[in-house]
Amino acid sequence: MDWDSPLISRLIDYWIEEDLGNGDLTESIITHKIGRAEWIAKEKGIFCGTEIIRRIFQRIDSQIEIDFSTKDGSEFIQNESILKLKGSPKSLLAGERITLNIAMHLSGISTYTNNLVSKLKGTKINLADTRKTTPGLRKLEKYAFKCGGGINHRMGLYDAAMIKENHIAWSNNLKDCVKKIRINTPFTTHIIIEVENINQAKDAVLAGADSILLDEIEPKILRNNIDSLREIFEKNSKEIIIEVSGIKPEAINDYLIEGIDLISTSSSVTKSNWIDLSMRYIN
Amino acid sequence: MDWDSPLISRLIDYWIEEDLGNGDLTESIITHKIGRAEWIAKEKGIFCGTEIIRRIFQRIDSQIEIDFSTKDGSEFIQNESILKLKGSPKSLLAGERITLNIAMHLSGISTYTNNLVSKLKGTKINLADTRKTTPGLRKLEKYAFKCGGGINHRMGLYDAAMIKENHIAWSNNLKDCVKKIRINTPFTTHIIIEVENINQAKDAVLAGADSILLDEIEPKILRNNIDSLREIFEKNSKEIIIEVSGIKPEAINDYLIEGIDLISTSSSVTKSNWIDLSMRYIN
Amino acid sequence: MDWDSPLISRLIDYWIEEDLGNGDLTESIITHKIGRAEWIAKEKGIFCGTEIIRRIFQRIDSQIEIDFSTKDGSEFIQNESILKLKGSPKSLLAGERITLNIAMHLSGISTYTNNLVSKLKGTKINLADTRKTTPGLRKLEKYAFKCGGGINHRMGLYDAAMIKENHIAWSNNLKDCVKKIRINTPFTTHIIIEVENINQAKDAVLAGADSILLDEIEPKILRNNIDSLREIFEKNSKEIIIEVSGIKPEAINDYLIEGIDLISTSSSVTKSNWIDLSMRYIN
Amino acid sequence: MDWDSPLISRLIDYWIEEDLGNGDLTESIITHKIGRAEWIAKEKGIFCGTEIIRRIFQRIDSQIEIDFSTKDGSEFIQNESILKLKGSPKSLLAGERITLNIAMHLSGISTYTNNLVSKLKGTKINLADTRKTTPGLRKLEKYAFKCGGGINHRMGLYDAAMIKENHIAWSNNLKDCVKKIRINTPFTTHIIIEVENINQAKDAVLAGADSILLDEIEPKILRNNIDSLREIFEKNSKEIIIEVSGIKPEAINDYLIEGIDLISTSSSVTKSNWIDLSMRYIN
Amino acid sequence: MDWDSPLISRLIDYWIEEDLGNGDLTESIITHKIGRAEWIAKEKGIFCGTEIIRRIFQRIDSQIEIDFSTKDGSEFIQNESILKLKGSPKSLLAGERITLNIAMHLSGISTYTNNLVSKLKGTKINLADTRKTTPGLRKLEKYAFKCGGGINHRMGLYDAAMIKENHIAWSNNLKDCVKKIRINTPFTTHIIIEVENINQAKDAVLAGADSILLDEIEPKILRNNIDSLREIFEKNSKEIIIEVSGIKPEAINDYLIEGIDLISTSSSVTKSNWIDLSMRYIN
Amino acid sequence: MDWDSPLISRLIDYWIEEDLGNGDLTESIITHKIGRAEWIAKEKGIFCGTEIIRRIFQRIDSQIEIDFSTKDGSEFIQNESILKLKGSPKSLLAGERITLNIAMHLSGISTYTNNLVSKLKGTKINLADTRKTTPGLRKLEKYAFKCGGGINHRMGLYDAAMIKENHIAWSNNLKDCVKKIRINTPFTTHIIIEVENINQAKDAVLAGADSILLDEIEPKILRNNIDSLREIFEKNSKEIIIEVSGIKPEAINDYLIEGIDLISTSSSVTKSNWIDLSMRYIN
Repeated sequence: MDWDSPLISRLIDYWIEEDLGNGDLTESIITHKIGRAEWIAKEKGIFCGTEIIRRIFQRIDSQIEIDFSTKDGSEFIQNESILKLKGSPKSLLAGERITLNIAMHLSGISTYTNNLVSKLKGTKINLADTRKTTPGLRKLEKYAFKCGGGINHRMGLYDAAMIKENHIAWSNNLKDCVKKIRINTPFTTHIIIEVENINQAKDAVLAGADSILLDEIEPKILRNNIDSLREIFEKNSKEIIIEVSGIKPEAINDYLIEGIDLISTSSSVTKSNWIDLSMRYIN
Repeated sequence: MDWDSPLISRLIDYWIEEDLGNGDLTESIITHKIGRAEWIAKEKGIFCGTEIIRRIFQRIDSQIEIDFSTKDGSEFIQNESILKLKGSPKSLLAGERITLNIAMHLSGISTYTNNLVSKLKGTKINLADTRKTTPGLRKLEKYAFKCGGGINHRMGLYDAAMIKENHIAWSNNLKDCVKKIRINTPFTTHIIIEVENINQAKDAVLAGADSILLDEIEPKILRNNIDSLREIFEKNSKEIIIEVSGIKPEAINDYLIEGIDLISTSSSVTKSNWIDLSMRYIN
Repeated sequence: MDWDSPLISRLIDYWIEEDLGNGDLTESIITHKIGRAEWIAKEKGIFCGTEIIRRIFQRIDSQIEIDFSTKDGSEFIQNESILKLKGSPKSLLAGERITLNIAMHLSGISTYTNNLVSKLKGTKINLADTRKTTPGLRKLEKYAFKCGGGINHRMGLYDAAMIKENHIAWSNNLKDCVKKIRINTPFTTHIIIEVENINQAKDAVLAGADSILLDEIEPKILRNNIDSLREIFEKNSKEIIIEVSGIKPEAINDYLIEGIDLISTSSSVTKSNWIDLSMRYIN
Repeated sequence: MDWDSPLISRLIDYWIEEDLGNGDLTESIITHKIGRAEWIAKEKGIFCGTEIIRRIFQRIDSQIEIDFSTKDGSEFIQNESILKLKGSPKSLLAGERITLNIAMHLSGISTYTNNLVSKLKGTKINLADTRKTTPGLRKLEKYAFKCGGGINHRMGLYDAAMIKENHIAWSNNLKDCVKKIRINTPFTTHIIIEVENINQAKDAVLAGADSILLDEIEPKILRNNIDSLREIFEKNSKEIIIEVSGIKPEAINDYLIEGIDLISTSSSVTKSNWIDLSMRYIN
Repeated sequence: MDWDSPLISRLIDYWIEEDLGNGDLTESIITHKIGRAEWIAKEKGIFCGTEIIRRIFQRIDSQIEIDFSTKDGSEFIQNESILKLKGSPKSLLAGERITLNIAMHLSGISTYTNNLVSKLKGTKINLADTRKTTPGLRKLEKYAFKCGGGINHRMGLYDAAMIKENHIAWSNNLKDCVKKIRINTPFTTHIIIEVENINQAKDAVLAGADSILLDEIEPKILRNNIDSLREIFEKNSKEIIIEVSGIKPEAINDYLIEGIDLISTSSSVTKSNWIDLSMRYIN
Repeated sequence: MDWDSPLISRLIDYWIEEDLGNGDLTESIITHKIGRAEWIAKEKGIFCGTEIIRRIFQRIDSQIEIDFSTKDGSEFIQNESILKLKGSPKSLLAGERITLNIAMHLSGISTYTNNLVSKLKGTKINLADTRKTTPGLRKLEKYAFKCGGGINHRMGLYDAAMIKENHIAWSNNLKDCVKKIRINTPFTTHIIIEVENINQAKDAVLAGADSILLDEIEPKILRNNIDSLREIFEKNSKEIIIEVSGIKPEAINDYLIEGIDLISTSSSVTKSNWIDLSMRYIN
């Protein structure tokens, strides 16, 4: 993560304008020159957000001092102190809600992911995320996913190609698709083909895919076919990655099948709750 | 909601850059000139997102035709068709994920809110949102909250003043705070004081608040004191709004107390799941 | 005023591009490494602009030192020294015109406002501004108005609702209007109804307004009716704010009527002259 | 004026955000689908603003129809109808204040300028503007100046070079300055030297200036020396432009001296009042 | 290429501001309402630029009609007509230089590339570009490279990983590098290792690279070792891509060695001349 | 050059986003905290780029130290060390390609220009650039041209007026054109008329041009007519600048004719090659 990138600067500016607009209407009531505050966890979880918190406060007031007692990816318990702040109370109040909002959201994702990842322990299966992310926050949510122990899938439509059902409906055959992508995109492009049954998976390999995404397939069927799939792949001397998706998080244990490389899930973003954190002044 | 505002344009541009970057790597495989697709609900819910979906597709390709069979705030059932699309398949695929992501997220908020609001039926209590919103999406999430039947709290630090515990720690007394805000901000400013017990509530009224926010107070205590609070307010000939917060969503029934005007909750944003929608081509 | 906000940064960048474009064509002639300069007032007035001047010079060259001998809202006399500068002469010249332009304009507003405010002394009436502000400068002009002793009206269409003649022509009745605003906007929204005679004022109160704006009403009529208006308000147990507008600045003395809370005027922006200031090098 | 330039688009977006922010709080009360309105002049003047008004309304709502009954630079009388509008009342109200503000301000400048220009009739002297313009509005204010009958001076520090007292203090001699500018800037650069007496004017010509700006010099002195100045210029076979500045607008008649090419004045911007215009619905 | 993307819009806006600034100073001299013009090739080449030309003119004036008689990637001869324009002469002149500049530059790249690609005919070797591109134009220059018959390398640091000499100096061993990238980046990431001799190439394969970039290696050495390299790759059952770089364009024929997949070159950008095109009015 | 201008900041941000996007995929492999590197010239040339290199690295990481051993406009030889860097290796790698790309391109222009300028030695003729510049880089390319010993022509359509063949086709006569420009643009505007033969040149002077651009005229014809042209100019007591263009760089010696002020050429941009520079770590 390149925390000083212009992209992150633009986001932070947008967020500050969103909450502060023409300025905090309570600004005039502050009489103290210096204030201290700390963040307390109101429930346990996995933390995510140190660098983005730092940049937000820095943009609001470069004089604010932040002292973290945790780091991204670390576990914290209820009532634990997360960080301490010192600086102009006006600035602490100006940045309070924006920083808490992003940290509570990201920590929610890291915590949820971490819980799923723990179910994969002892297997060789990795948990991967998806493109189902909150508009504007993909980079950060994928970072939070990684802090929770997952690995990242492609960032967008531009850094890997995935051929799905809709693509197939609007194009020629699979072979033609793969060929066109190889010619028209950087030669480094990884091509994934999404399939809905085992036969399609075989066709996808023959068409030249680098990965196969098996979507919404029963665990039993997966279990019975994974070895024969692997054999076909090897015959075609391709190190194909096998990804499985469309799994309800609560059913993940049924999919811990040898031969699967990745389980991908959007649930860390779409089903996680924010972790409750709050900021309190310190005397 | 002013859907054509420059603020919304900036957001949409950012989201498109986020997902498309230098372009969709599968673009070259599309052979069809015109495609049709529809959105199907994979579970029931309250819809939110018609106008933002329209602007996103419009920005990507002004030729795309969209035909909604639902509207914001309407209920839909599982397997219901939400909208139909017609246009260049390249453009349909380019806009698919961005539009689904925002609509699934917003519909999740509307659906969650609607469920809470239904518990308030028969009372005079309104459900209000908070400033705990996903950075970059406040305007849209507050709109989704309204589509779910709630009413909006202030949009940010700039359109109403709320004096909370941290403010009090870093300023003089409450009376001084209210006085300073009255002088230093637009005369139209609504002042809310957050309190943690009944005595503080009384002080807040005497200090000149327009609303009292009673945070994390037991239902029993609220019930026993609400009438005497109202009396004090009337003595000071103020139409004070009484807001209650810090309620677990599952405990909301305990707070249906006459005399309370508003229950405010961040749970629609922090605890809601996305509603599952998907786009499928039509032959 | 949040002087470090992204909004202010964007403005300053725009102003610098406007005056400097591809750079100062005289840049190459400067041979001195360090220069000193001061600002001299060529006429008396009320100063406004310290913080914006500071940010503009800072953006052009972070090494420039500024030493103010006045502060916002303070009176200065002809020939008084306003500030001293030290730094690269190239940078002093690059920032000279932009800083002088904004300070002369804002000080013009503060000075004009201060003069009007002085006429209200001894009364309980406050002077408020309007939305008639120079496009791009509202935040700053309203700040200058406050530095001149006035109080601010709403910042824009988004932080308070005003129902005017044109609104009424294109909507149902007043009661319906107020009701719709209460449901569709943050509950903190202050509703003002503009009226053109005493009867409309009474209707406005009954419709539920928080403020009444009496526009272009003769002082005599105001004087004769203000008490009966107040009575009606009290009967409806509302603390309604009474604002008067449409007054020629020279006729303001006729409107110093007890019971009026606010006189609002756009004249500080639309009729004020810039205060003449100039920058001179110091040996 | 390039009314469709990205620079103008950025300005308009900023102005709309400034007034509308998160949207007009009265939006929900409008029940009419189509409304008509017109602009009425509340005093006489010279109009300026047709194209910027058109772009602002277009940006807010491309369906709005505008029909001007005047054009930029034309005179209008009190109570004259300036333009008629037809479209969604929500959009008319959203654009009302922004468009009126800019048109009232620009028309104020055109009107003031026109008045000064009329005093120069019968002479060969042109009226020119300066860089004393409202930050953010230079391009538009200079356009308004031209609509009032004046001609434009340089747009900024980047399109002509002016050597003033401060420059001289921080550089070597005049000759060196002119030489450096000739080498270091586009060969098309026009060089103006500001002088405070007749001897300096002669030196400036010898140094190679293209124009001489005579600042704050008594009319009598100008009258006595203008011919000898012209002679020196001709000896150096230069067609030098003679500009005079630092004139109080009310004293302009004293400066109608043959041989002066330009009188430059900032008063059109710094001393003009807005022309009062208002928008009224039409049944 | 996604020609309607916000990224392209931002570029075009920047280019228009760069050339037009406050507007074309010759604008006022145009008396014709409609003009026609055409582009003539002053030398032969491969054309590139249809879509960007279209967007630039569209942004300047949506009424301009463009009729291309060539398309991207097509050959044209000297004096051939490239396109015809019809519209306001002011707009044709405003867009002339910007459109010609980009088209002449891109066509220069396509033409140069096409010439190199023609030398690879009859082999299985593809020509690939590099990250040596003009700042701000990477997307377009890579598109021009493709129009000339080449294939694209990675777009930037974000869509494929290349480990070069400097990386190795500042990290642990190669194996550790590959392992860290696999964990910390999307699983779709293609890893290239740049090597300077045959032994390093073998190490790179064992470390887990997806491609090997052989930089500045003598053709003779390449020829002698390519088969043994391929064998090692196959033993590790990896379909490794072999890229060769650091070749002087004039020496390319020496590198047409079977077993090489790609020759990458920056020369299309760093050594190509613009193709001369000009716009002429048509009566 | 105003290196801290918002325009330059916007460019640099764009370039960083272009190469880094969501971040360098090799970032995680770096284990060293501090690295040193230097830039080596792989061929001789004239350097250009110190200040832009400084700003790019500064934007990426304000801790990076840069020590230049050359300056803009200085000659360097093959294998010479250009600059030394010290800082976080991650940041050195992030900025490597962007800084090298711009410096290699600009140094290519300076070197090419310097070579042409050397051919003009001993004459009074200056070499000037044109508006044929790479979109987005005009300011920098014109700066590089100056570093190579040339002088700049106008920056764009906004800072000098040039009347060319197309203008004449779409307007009235030349006299009318010059008159309109004098009235409608800043009085400081320099007017150039492009002509294709000697008679047109004479007409241009009579029409009031400040410069004559003789395009694609045979050296012999120029030589025979230059004196009579100068005479006519003097009769009209105008110091007209005579510019010659449309010259093939290799034929420049034929145009070293007394009486010509400027030779303008786009070849420094359209025909120059990048100068090869590379960054290497230092132990």
